[in-house]
Amino acid sequence: MTIVISKSIVYREIPTGLPIPDQHFQVVSTELDLDDLALEHGDFVTKTLYLSVDPYQRSKMREPSIESYNSAYELNKIMSGGAISQVIQSNNPTFRVGDYVTGGSARWEEYSVIRRAQASQFRNTTDRIHQVGLPLRHWLNVLGGTGLTAYVGFRLFGDIRPGKTIYISGAAGATGYVIAQIAKIKGLRVIGSTGDDAKVLFLMETAGIDAAFNYKKISVDEALSEYAPDGIDFFFDNVGGETLEATINHANTHARFILCGAISGYNQSDEERYGVKNLFKVVSKRLDIKGFLVSEAAPPFIEDFHREVVGWVKSGELVVSDSVVEGIENTPKALVDMLQGKNLGKQLVKVAEEDP
Amino acid sequence: MTIVISKSIVYREIPTGLPIPDQHFQVVSTELDLDDLALEHGDFVTKTLYLSVDPYQRSKMREPSIESYNSAYELNKIMSGGAISQVIQSNNPTFRVGDYVTGGSARWEEYSVIRRAQASQFRNTTDRIHQVGLPLRHWLNVLGGTGLTAYVGFRLFGDIRPGKTIYISGAAGATGYVIAQIAKIKGLRVIGSTGDDAKVLFLMETAGIDAAFNYKKISVDEALSEYAPDGIDFFFDNVGGETLEATINHANTHARFILCGAISGYNQSDEERYGVKNLFKVVSKRLDIKGFLVSEAAPPFIEDFHREVVGWVKSGELVVSDSVVEGIENTPKALVDMLQGKNLGKQLVKVAEEDP
Repeated sequence: MTIVISKSIVYREIPTGLPIPDQHFQVVSTELDLDDLALEHGDFVTKTLYLSVDPYQRSKMREPSIESYNSAYELNKIMSGGAISQVIQSNNPTFRVGDYVTGGSARWEEYSVIRRAQASQFRNTTDRIHQVGLPLRHWLNVLGGTGLTAYVGFRLFGDIRPGKTIYISGAAGATGYVIAQIAKIKGLRVIGSTGDDAKVLFLMETAGIDAAFNYKKISVDEALSEYAPDGIDFFFDNVGGETLEATINHANTHARFILCGAISGYNQSDEERYGVKNLFKVVSKRLDIKGFLVSEAAPPFIEDFHREVVGWVKSGELVVSDSVVEGIENTPKALVDMLQGKNLGKQLVKVAEEDP
Repeated sequence: MTIVISKSIVYREIPTGLPIPDQHFQVVSTELDLDDLALEHGDFVTKTLYLSVDPYQRSKMREPSIESYNSAYELNKIMSGGAISQVIQSNNPTFRVGDYVTGGSARWEEYSVIRRAQASQFRNTTDRIHQVGLPLRHWLNVLGGTGLTAYVGFRLFGDIRPGKTIYISGAAGATGYVIAQIAKIKGLRVIGSTGDDAKVLFLMETAGIDAAFNYKKISVDEALSEYAPDGIDFFFDNVGGETLEATINHANTHARFILCGAISGYNQSDEERYGVKNLFKVVSKRLDIKGFLVSEAAPPFIEDFHREVVGWVKSGELVVSDSVVEGIENTPKALVDMLQGKNLGKQLVKVAEEDP
C-alpha cells in the first residue's frame, strides 16, 4: 500500500459576485492507494505539477442554463483548467512514466487517474519541452493558452504597420503583458493600462512599452489624451465597459478593436454592467470590432506562434512573468486574486515538484 | 430682365434636440435676374427639381468643433444635400441646357449658379437617365446614395448563404426598405422593425419580407424571440441603442453586424444616449461589428450595383417607395418628419417640374 492524500478543489455554489473560497469552492482531501488503482489498458496516472488560473474559469461558474462558448462547471464536481502534469504510472504506451502531460481540462487535484476514454484530451509534450529547453511553467504561460491568445489576437488585427499606436487594457495580465511585448517587437507605439503602480513600473521598465498608467489614478480618457494625442489605431481589450467607451472616443478612423475579454463585468449582473453610450461612433469612425476565441482563430497561426514566441523568449526580447502560489489548496484564492487583478503576468499554482 | 424669386433654406442655429423649422433653419427668398448672371466660362445655372432629405444632415447641424466623418454645416449659410437639377443656362460645354445634373452637395435653393470651380462636384447624368428609363426621382432613392448604401452594406456582410436570418432596424426607411428587399431577393429570411403599423403592412405586403413589427408596440427582444427563434445571423442597424443591445442578445455565434446609422441617438446629447450593457457578448459570441461609410466602401461594388438594382427595379422584384413633399419651403419640415420616422421609403422634396 502506498497511500497518498490527494487534495482537490470542488465547486460548491454559484457565486453572484466575486467567488469566496470555502463557500463557492471547497478543498476536499481523498485517500488514494497508488498500489491499487486497477489500471486497465490505456489508463495512466499523473501527478499535477502546475495549474493555470484564468478569467474564463469565472465565466464557467454560472447557471448552466445560461449559454456561452464554454460549458458551465457542474456543482459538486472537481473544477478543471489548463495544467502540466507528470506521469507516475501507466498502462498507456503513449504516456510513459516520467513524461510531461499538458491539457486544457485537467482536474484540479493532486493525482489524476486518467482513463483511456479521456486520454485524447491530453498531449505528451515531453519531447517538445526538452527540445525547447525553457522552464516547465512557461508552457502554461507564454507558450500556452494565454500566450497563444496574445499572439493570435495580435495577428487578427491584420495588416499592422510600425509606427501605429496600440492600446492594451489589462496590459499586465497573462495575455496583456505578452501582447504588449509582441506589439513592441513589431514596431508599434504601445500604451497599456493596469490597476496598480508596481505593474505600471513592470510594463514600463521590464516589458519596455511606451506608456503605462494606473486606471485607478488617472481615467482612461485623460491618459489617452496625454499618451495618444494622435489617437488609437488598434485596441486589444481585456476589460470592456468604461474602458471600451473611452477608447472608442480616442479611436482613429478605421481603428480595429479585438475584444478578448470584459473582466470589468465578469462579477456583475446584467443590470450592474456599465452601458456604453457612444456606439454611434462605431459608425462615424468606421470602426471594425471583433470578438474572438483563441481555439477557433488559432490554427493558421500555430506554427508561426511556436517559432516566433520561442525565439523571442530565448533571445530575451520577450520577458516572461508569472505570479506563482504554492499548494493546490490555494487555487481558489489564486483565482479570486487574479479576478481582482492582483497577479502580475500569468497566475499559476505550483502543486508539486517534478520528479527528477 | 427675367426676375425669379429663388427660395433657399438657411441654417440659423445649432439644435440640441429635434431641429425646429423657422428656428434652426429659415426660408429665405432672394430675387434673381436670370438675364443678368454674368456667367463666365465654365459656369452654369440649374433649376432644382428634387432634393434628398437624409439623417446625416442632422449630424451636420452640430458644433463645428466636434469632429466627424462629415463637415458641420456653417451657420447662416444655405444648407446642402443630394439633388437632381436641370440646366437652364450654361457657359460650360459639359452641362448643356436641359441636361440633368446630380450631386451630393447641391445647395437647398431653387436656382443655383454653379461656378466653374464647383462644377466638378456635379455629374451630368442625362444619358444614363434616358438609357435606364426609370422615373427621375428614383435617382435620389434606390439608384442614388441610399440605394447604394443598402446595396454596399449588404455586400459587406461578405459570404451570405440563403436560409440565414437577417434583421434590419429602421426597415421602412430609405436604406432599410431597399436592403430588406435585396436580402429577400438573395434568399434570406428577413425580419424588419419600424415605428408605425402602416409601415409594418408595407414591409409585409409590398416589400414582401418574412416578418415585420412595430417596435413601439412590441419590444425588439420579444419580437426577435418570436420571429427569429433560431437567432440572428446578420444585422443591418440604422437605429443603435436599445435595438443594438437586444439584437446582441439574439445574435448567433459569429453573427455579422453592419452598423449604418444610430438614428435613436441623433437628437440626444452624449449623456442622454442609451448605454449598451451587454458588449461582453461580442466576445462570447465572437461577433464581427463594422461601421461603414458608403463613399469609402462603394467603389468595388458600383458596377454590380447599377446592373443588379436597375434589373430588379425593372423586373418589379424591388419595389420603389418614397414620401414626396412639394415645395422647397417644406424641406425643414421634411427633415424633421424624417428624423421622427414619418417617412415611408425615401424622403424627397419636389421643388419644381422638369422642363419638357
